[in-house]
Amino acid sequence: MNNFDFYNPTHIVFGKDRLQELDKLIPSDAKVLLLFGGGSVKKYGTYDKVIKALGEREVVDFGGIEPNPQYDTLMKAVEVVKTQDITFLLAVGGGSVMDGTKFISLAANFDGTPSDLLVGKAKTSEVKVATPLGTVCTLPATGSEMNAGGVISFEGGKYGMGSPLVYPKFSFLDPTLTYSLPKVQVANGVVDAFVHTLEQYSTFPADAKFQDRTAEGILQSLIEIGKTTLDNPTDYDARANLVWCATNALNGLIGAGVPNDWATHMLGHELTAMFGIDHAQTLAIVQPALWTVRKEKKKAKLLQYSQRVWGITEGSDDEIVDAGIAKTREFFESLGLKTRMSEYGITEDKIDDLVKALGNHGMTALSETRDLDLDVSRAIFQEAM
Amino acid sequence: MNNFDFYNPTHIVFGKDRLQELDKLIPSDAKVLLLFGGGSVKKYGTYDKVIKALGEREVVDFGGIEPNPQYDTLMKAVEVVKTQDITFLLAVGGGSVMDGTKFISLAANFDGTPSDLLVGKAKTSEVKVATPLGTVCTLPATGSEMNAGGVISFEGGKYGMGSPLVYPKFSFLDPTLTYSLPKVQVANGVVDAFVHTLEQYSTFPADAKFQDRTAEGILQSLIEIGKTTLDNPTDYDARANLVWCATNALNGLIGAGVPNDWATHMLGHELTAMFGIDHAQTLAIVQPALWTVRKEKKKAKLLQYSQRVWGITEGSDDEIVDAGIAKTREFFESLGLKTRMSEYGITEDKIDDLVKALGNHGMTALSETRDLDLDVSRAIFQEAM
Repeated sequence: MNNFDFYNPTHIVFGKDRLQELDKLIPSDAKVLLLFGGGSVKKYGTYDKVIKALGEREVVDFGGIEPNPQYDTLMKAVEVVKTQDITFLLAVGGGSVMDGTKFISLAANFDGTPSDLLVGKAKTSEVKVATPLGTVCTLPATGSEMNAGGVISFEGGKYGMGSPLVYPKFSFLDPTLTYSLPKVQVANGVVDAFVHTLEQYSTFPADAKFQDRTAEGILQSLIEIGKTTLDNPTDYDARANLVWCATNALNGLIGAGVPNDWATHMLGHELTAMFGIDHAQTLAIVQPALWTVRKEKKKAKLLQYSQRVWGITEGSDDEIVDAGIAKTREFFESLGLKTRMSEYGITEDKIDDLVKALGNHGMTALSETRDLDLDVSRAIFQEAM
Repeated sequence: MNNFDFYNPTHIVFGKDRLQELDKLIPSDAKVLLLFGGGSVKKYGTYDKVIKALGEREVVDFGGIEPNPQYDTLMKAVEVVKTQDITFLLAVGGGSVMDGTKFISLAANFDGTPSDLLVGKAKTSEVKVATPLGTVCTLPATGSEMNAGGVISFEGGKYGMGSPLVYPKFSFLDPTLTYSLPKVQVANGVVDAFVHTLEQYSTFPADAKFQDRTAEGILQSLIEIGKTTLDNPTDYDARANLVWCATNALNGLIGAGVPNDWATHMLGHELTAMFGIDHAQTLAIVQPALWTVRKEKKKAKLLQYSQRVWGITEGSDDEIVDAGIAKTREFFESLGLKTRMSEYGITEDKIDDLVKALGNHGMTALSETRDLDLDVSRAIFQEAM
């Protein structure tokens, strides 16, 4: 096991009908900026419940944070925070709203040009205080509700950023608030949580038994409930298991003390940026292809994965690994996701552009071994056709 | 899944040779009370490393916190905190030192009689501030390094207490600091962590997949490394896995949203109080007996346990459950722990006294279903003979 730090102070408020407890968790004299995306939080009543729980507090709305939240949009919210003396940020939505709110929390307290925090010209550690934030998470997927990071879109690229200052003070996870999600978003959520887990698990062995077993438990759980929660959105327990698995897939627990990959995400980000494919859908394309190309390097963990998660025990090691990769692809497809670039109409001649974009974004030494260079990325995109 | 809150702000600093980082985590102007047990922290050099890391800070020693920390001892430390203006408590030791330090942290800031916080005459929520504390954990077992509770001995009884105020600010978990532990303490630690997990797992099904799988992962890991870390104390990875499993067995994660039992602990406490048997050794006695008596109530989870953790699939449900109980007893015994009261020379006529003591301590409605009354406790003690 590698040395590690684990720190996660977010207070999770999990379960049905608890939004009234917002009143206990936000200072009574707070001036709240309420951040959300499109109209669904209003359409399905979540907005009204939040407003009611906030009681007498002064509340300013900021809607319209888009999927893959855009820097320019977020900077408008930063302006509101600064000019209207906002003291608390409440994100009501999914990963994009939560990620965007984290960036706003930092950017509103940064003296320089906030985009520098994204492109690496400035470090988030230069920001010494951040506007406190909490979340009401309405989409189980990204884990943003219980971590200190986010991904922001800026000038055609997607940039990760984070700081311990932006751990949500609290996050409400009410599975019933997710019942109204479109089916595709639920499927995306299952795959997003699944691949988050894999990024921290399918690397090389580090003899970290708790982390491995916990990751395997999340994967097994998602396999068990994925189809059920898609087909029966109001099955409370299935949805509750999706929600809590998605959170634990990216709250630092399973990634502590072990190698982390994240190359699938980096390659996927270029597919989103260039073709507008949903984040999770890009992961479903890249992950099986990446494994196929990197099979030898990842063989020990892929074998463990195939055996423990899928129960595949017959055949040679190679056959077991191949069967595990095939099962994973089938699982993604059973949820309605495509796993080939060609299924999105992307032709092979676009691979040059994708590789070039990776280079432009500095993604030249990816993966747990830092040797996934642009040539390997090219091979993965080709495999993913 | 039941509604739950999860909140755990302890910063874990895990790994080899990191004690010098204490300097970053304790305020530079702190006046530190350094709490420890017997002489082992001095004998094996941990004390010196801690003192060196604390640098120029003023440090007051408080040694001599005994196993099953005694109220009277702890009150002497409370006096030191109050009279010498201590601003930070640093616990260096195992569960007793950490638990005791938590009580000191609260008691030093409580206006009433601190024993009232134990016997239920006052609530810890009446204490509004606590002296901040951190730990250097030298014994993997209790999980106290990452939770907000403790057990304190007072007038012949053992009393649980806790408050969110006493989460350690940080805990150092360096597996190498545990190499010098006597073999029996390591065996106790494995069993303690194992039964902590069972108390939150072997109840009735709540369809909480992440919690179940994570608990099973801890149990499987402890089975895998238990004997190894006993026989090869300097096998870093085995010991690191014990340390991190023990912490996660009782940091709130696996017990959130599911029924909890804890009857094995309550019955075990009486064995410690009356006969001085080590805490974990009482658990090894009570757990198999409790399962045997409560088999019907716990059958669904015991079946899942036997199948998933021990891989037992042959036979009727009853046979599988019985085999799982037998495997558990064998596991405890393989670590050198006894699993029968009679092996400690306790005779059947003492059961009356044990049941009476349970009654005196208010333990009349135990377990996840609150129906484990004194008659059932009597049956469990008889089964444990």
